[in-house]
Amino acid sequence: MSLAFEHVTLGQRVLFGSGKAAEHLAAEVSRLGAGRVMVIASEFEADLARTVAAEIEVALWHQEVIMHVPVEVAERARTAAVQAGIDLIVCVGGGSTTGLAKAIALTTGIPILAVPTTYAGSEATNVWGLTEAARKTTGVDDQVLPATVIYDAGLTLTLPVELSVASGLNGLAHCVDSLWGPRADPINAALAAEGIRALAAGLPAIVADPAGLEGREQALYGAYLAAVAFASAGSGMHHKICHVLGGTFNLPHAQTHATVLPYVLAFNAPHAPQAEARIAAAFGTGTALEGLQALREQLDAPKALADYGFTADGIAEAVAVALPAIPATNPRPVTADNLTALLAAALTGADPATLTDDALEGARR
Amino acid sequence: MSLAFEHVTLGQRVLFGSGKAAEHLAAEVSRLGAGRVMVIASEFEADLARTVAAEIEVALWHQEVIMHVPVEVAERARTAAVQAGIDLIVCVGGGSTTGLAKAIALTTGIPILAVPTTYAGSEATNVWGLTEAARKTTGVDDQVLPATVIYDAGLTLTLPVELSVASGLNGLAHCVDSLWGPRADPINAALAAEGIRALAAGLPAIVADPAGLEGREQALYGAYLAAVAFASAGSGMHHKICHVLGGTFNLPHAQTHATVLPYVLAFNAPHAPQAEARIAAAFGTGTALEGLQALREQLDAPKALADYGFTADGIAEAVAVALPAIPATNPRPVTADNLTALLAAALTGADPATLTDDALEGARR
Repeated sequence: MSLAFEHVTLGQRVLFGSGKAAEHLAAEVSRLGAGRVMVIASEFEADLARTVAAEIEVALWHQEVIMHVPVEVAERARTAAVQAGIDLIVCVGGGSTTGLAKAIALTTGIPILAVPTTYAGSEATNVWGLTEAARKTTGVDDQVLPATVIYDAGLTLTLPVELSVASGLNGLAHCVDSLWGPRADPINAALAAEGIRALAAGLPAIVADPAGLEGREQALYGAYLAAVAFASAGSGMHHKICHVLGGTFNLPHAQTHATVLPYVLAFNAPHAPQAEARIAAAFGTGTALEGLQALREQLDAPKALADYGFTADGIAEAVAVALPAIPATNPRPVTADNLTALLAAALTGADPATLTDDALEGARR
Repeated sequence: MSLAFEHVTLGQRVLFGSGKAAEHLAAEVSRLGAGRVMVIASEFEADLARTVAAEIEVALWHQEVIMHVPVEVAERARTAAVQAGIDLIVCVGGGSTTGLAKAIALTTGIPILAVPTTYAGSEATNVWGLTEAARKTTGVDDQVLPATVIYDAGLTLTLPVELSVASGLNGLAHCVDSLWGPRADPINAALAAEGIRALAAGLPAIVADPAGLEGREQALYGAYLAAVAFASAGSGMHHKICHVLGGTFNLPHAQTHATVLPYVLAFNAPHAPQAEARIAAAFGTGTALEGLQALREQLDAPKALADYGFTADGIAEAVAVALPAIPATNPRPVTADNLTALLAAALTGADPATLTDDALEGARR
């Protein structure tokens, strides 16, 4: 099989170490020669941000962080940054905080140093998003990619176990889906497999010892790789389906991802032997599905879309909306029939193994 | 075990496709908006370079390529580039050609587009080298990192099988050594493991079908990852030993690497369980050493340093020079005793398994 791909590696410095955020931040501010630093952190993370910034001089503190980055919020932050003569933005927080920093960088070119406190992964991508009149606009610009990311698993200790698991499974879905995304390539695949390995090790460790750092470190590291691989490979079948379930049917994001993933994996894996082998190897199990299901079992992950308000009545509409959105490059051809079968199985929590070709063909005959 | 590392990812665009070099080059020249392109290629690769540059306008052709980039050669190329108002350097060739392009970029800042024709890997690093009065100076500067690399396995078809295998095994050594280099981290490790997988698939395929593209593609891709991982992780024990054997004893580069690698692997692997597991998984074998030895067997790789002029008399001096150069972070503590045992085994081509702790301890007792 011929090897052909285009891969863009985004240049970025990553400093990873528990309890090291303040020290790493001071070293980076000095290395970058920043003179006037703006620190963005929401009200709820202000104390955390003060600890992280303890060893640097801060010219401007900014607390107005709103989900999905409304344009007027972005505008106020941009004006504040420019008026204060800021030459480095430090964002301490989750996706919305990083998102605001990106909105400033987009128009001002001021570099970003990100200190994530969740597994959102936005810090590893050049994707920005803004909301105006309830409409979200997203775009890609290398200017919004943080120059440096400082990961400190100590900052994620306050993330509740349940949320950590849900967010980690979302990262896992990014890894799996990037193996057959529209710009999937072997480099993304290698990083995604490493992400699966780290998340599969980290998430059960968080459940077993929520106050411990080891599981949190692995999960944080895995979530970073998930973001790198997914941003490069683009949304595959899994994310297109979940996007419709969330957007049209208002199903909860994390639970939807966690429920649907084994069905998409079972559906695609027999048609994607390299992805199947990589996932299985990353889990250290005989097959990819075995590994995913064993992990879901350990984490007591959600099992059926019916538990989150989806009903059989919705399947036809979900199929109609999702089908045209699924990339033509998906390893297995998707039809209204087999997508209906997939959603019907996910609805009730049926065994995903029923979605392999033979099972499906048998059912239809 | 706590996870702590610093990783710098270098931003770069990679276009990979056999028979696509000319098309990819034209697209990139256009995307980069380059107006005055300088093409560097040695006399021996001039025809190849003309084919690659068939679809672009070339303002300046440059043929004076000399191994190890003498400073006076670099100076002449810099002057030519500046006088011609060049805004993009395209280098078509191996390490020396890429090296000359880097020498120009180092002082002029002109961006580079690299089209490699060997597995040297220089195109994936920010390392430059210059030679003055027979002394080589090397340095690191992001300005010399090619902005884009165009890989076309078709351009490597003229690389003889023996040279391909030697060069590929050198790449394999980069992958393995980067697992315990001074800046080893899990990201490097994931890329190195992917490099091992690709080289282990590609090299036997080149031997089996030298005119085929599949093996060449895998080897070229693996050599790229080897360079990325090794440049980031830095030289480990293997390269420090081979550097001494090459420098002090003038042993041939490729053969020395190929011979020494299984001994360093056998020596370190029991002390580096994660590296051992990654290498074994990449080879798809029970242990890392099994995988490496099976590949070496398939490739009829060199087995004993004695075959290349090394003698027992040299061991003491080699140990004295190499020992202080080996990173203190090497997973297994290196002593004059165990390094002597390693070189003695490599000299005669003894079974590397004799280098595991138990074997060594037993031998000394």
